[in-house]
Amino acid sequence: MQIIDGTIASPKGFKATGLHAGLKKEKKDLGVIFSEVPANAAAVYTTNQVKAAPIFVTKEAMTNQKIQAVVVNSGIANACTGTLGLENAKEMQALTGLHLGVSQENVAVASTGVIGKQLPMETVESGINQIDLQNQAPYAFHEAILTTDTATKEIVVTDEINGQTVTMAGVAKGSGMIHPNMATMLAFITTDAQISEILLQEMLADKTETTFNQITVDGDTSTNDMVLLLANGLAENSMIEKNTEAYKKFLEMFQLVSETLAKMIAKDGEGATKLIEVQVVGALNETEARLVAKKVVGSSLVKTAMFGEDPNWGRIICAVGYAGSHTDPEKIDMWIGDQQLLKHSQPQEFDEITMKQTLEKEKICITVDLNIGEQSGKAWGCDLTYKYVEVNALYHT
Amino acid sequence: MQIIDGTIASPKGFKATGLHAGLKKEKKDLGVIFSEVPANAAAVYTTNQVKAAPIFVTKEAMTNQKIQAVVVNSGIANACTGTLGLENAKEMQALTGLHLGVSQENVAVASTGVIGKQLPMETVESGINQIDLQNQAPYAFHEAILTTDTATKEIVVTDEINGQTVTMAGVAKGSGMIHPNMATMLAFITTDAQISEILLQEMLADKTETTFNQITVDGDTSTNDMVLLLANGLAENSMIEKNTEAYKKFLEMFQLVSETLAKMIAKDGEGATKLIEVQVVGALNETEARLVAKKVVGSSLVKTAMFGEDPNWGRIICAVGYAGSHTDPEKIDMWIGDQQLLKHSQPQEFDEITMKQTLEKEKICITVDLNIGEQSGKAWGCDLTYKYVEVNALYHT
Repeated sequence: MQIIDGTIASPKGFKATGLHAGLKKEKKDLGVIFSEVPANAAAVYTTNQVKAAPIFVTKEAMTNQKIQAVVVNSGIANACTGTLGLENAKEMQALTGLHLGVSQENVAVASTGVIGKQLPMETVESGINQIDLQNQAPYAFHEAILTTDTATKEIVVTDEINGQTVTMAGVAKGSGMIHPNMATMLAFITTDAQISEILLQEMLADKTETTFNQITVDGDTSTNDMVLLLANGLAENSMIEKNTEAYKKFLEMFQLVSETLAKMIAKDGEGATKLIEVQVVGALNETEARLVAKKVVGSSLVKTAMFGEDPNWGRIICAVGYAGSHTDPEKIDMWIGDQQLLKHSQPQEFDEITMKQTLEKEKICITVDLNIGEQSGKAWGCDLTYKYVEVNALYHT
Repeated sequence: MQIIDGTIASPKGFKATGLHAGLKKEKKDLGVIFSEVPANAAAVYTTNQVKAAPIFVTKEAMTNQKIQAVVVNSGIANACTGTLGLENAKEMQALTGLHLGVSQENVAVASTGVIGKQLPMETVESGINQIDLQNQAPYAFHEAILTTDTATKEIVVTDEINGQTVTMAGVAKGSGMIHPNMATMLAFITTDAQISEILLQEMLADKTETTFNQITVDGDTSTNDMVLLLANGLAENSMIEKNTEAYKKFLEMFQLVSETLAKMIAKDGEGATKLIEVQVVGALNETEARLVAKKVVGSSLVKTAMFGEDPNWGRIICAVGYAGSHTDPEKIDMWIGDQQLLKHSQPQEFDEITMKQTLEKEKICITVDLNIGEQSGKAWGCDLTYKYVEVNALYHT
């Protein structure tokens, strides 16, 4: 497998572009992904019971698991917008289908931005009609889905599968807001691989548990979260079947793309200065390992300690203790970087200068060994900073 | 029922005092509560799997549910201190018993402060030996249990029960730290009422669910939390039995004391400028009402919005949506103060000037009506401020 430069339109038969429609003041706010042929598709959505209108529209479009176009706007989340909001999301879908010559049922819709505001449909319609895929600018799509993200987030990988070069591209937006109502996570992954929609959905659901679902910035699950995976088959590899070498390779590509996007989102969390990776080993099972890792990385006290570059193992073991997994409180080992802080829950001497250097870095790795089993899991987050409070307190609705 | 000025030693037969033993630099760090006769006792403890040594010692002392003395230190949590820590907690218990002429098995022990540090037992012993209940200074006990709390937290109430004046006093410490390893909640409640230990424990366990367990500052459950309730019977009221008018009165006293202490702790959360009260009504059951209220008041996005004095209902409804209760996302009503922001999940017009005045206050009340049932619940928390980040990031272990 190789990581290559590229965009969401790098896999064969995909096009993408983005533009400024007028939902935001100046920045790009409308983007489209298009596949020459209907792609087999898989999706996972927010578990928030309050779901934005585009979630319902995309779910319906996913009934037959074929998607040929995706339209995304930023600036307005189209959440808590009632019947009109739902009509507007359907209208976005219809307008995009019409403009691109694609069946409306094969168009997915996603939104991110402020909650409770209706989409100005004239602006949206005029934006959609300006989409020009003959003169596509795929990187503009990466920009068009951002809110207060400080950077675009993308990764493209390629490998040979069943004798053909297969490419997979992922793009995401993270936790930021124009009007800070919600941290919405959107990710779109395209590939030209030939693989069934059933296998795609199974893989996406499974991998989401260990990648996108293992990041946290502020513990608030958005109303608009969505990961959409499209495979159009234009690489012309023979069909990827389960439990084959080909599937293993494809899974590795998908794992790398998902985990990389997840980490990029965590690192670019609101106000963040550091990416924190927590690895839990020696757990009874994977679910509990992931649970503990996510509790540690989500603890406000751990997050502020990392911002303060303090090896505060007391806060970490406290979070392990309340995570709700099987734990023997006397048997916990802990490391920050490669320096051991705890052995069987007892403090260990460590080199303070090396520790200081470890904590000054932009990525901090915390490892916890529960010493009660063989399973492991990871989670990613960021530090809690003055800037986080500023971003989220200074805004007025 | 009347609220009166007083201390933890106001109920008949109780004495209390506090002093500076030397665990902290200058402030008081050791305190004792004493009852002339062994009191019927009830206790609840942290659910954190990593528990501090004094928790184990107090649990053992509670085997027969009789407590005659309580010794508390601040400065060092005596958590993650292994076998030596457990021996030290037992030694604290024994020394206190010896000094006060009380059976060791009837002494409860509590600690709060930095994790992973051993108690300097010479300092502790010398402190205990300086305890002088002939010249008691009960308010010094209120001070001795604090860490970075900005104020002591106490309430004393009195009522006539079964023909006798019964007094109940509560004192607590909240979420602050000398060495900010953990936010520990300790509360001690004394009463001279005559009531069985079984009824006391039932009442405490029940009321903790709606009071102490309904506050959150940072979502981190400490290793040292403890609420201890002592009833020494010296008011000489005839025994309070369940389902009587007397019990109802006693329950009201206890409810007021617990809820008041809980609110005081929430209001004095680290860096807090505001107390936030969230009331959820129209829920399917009380447990879910409390769950939703606690999720809303614990949301970092809601907390920063309240700090910024912004009526950000989108963040509130988002937290309702991910709380995990039964919810109809289309039927949610919401108020801040007495102004309605949402009706059946749709935004309502409100008066901006009145809203501004509401949000400027030191206490903000948010009400959410789920409109799917008849039950309600409350939770209390505080805003998330620059000061919170400062308090928890600037400290170095």
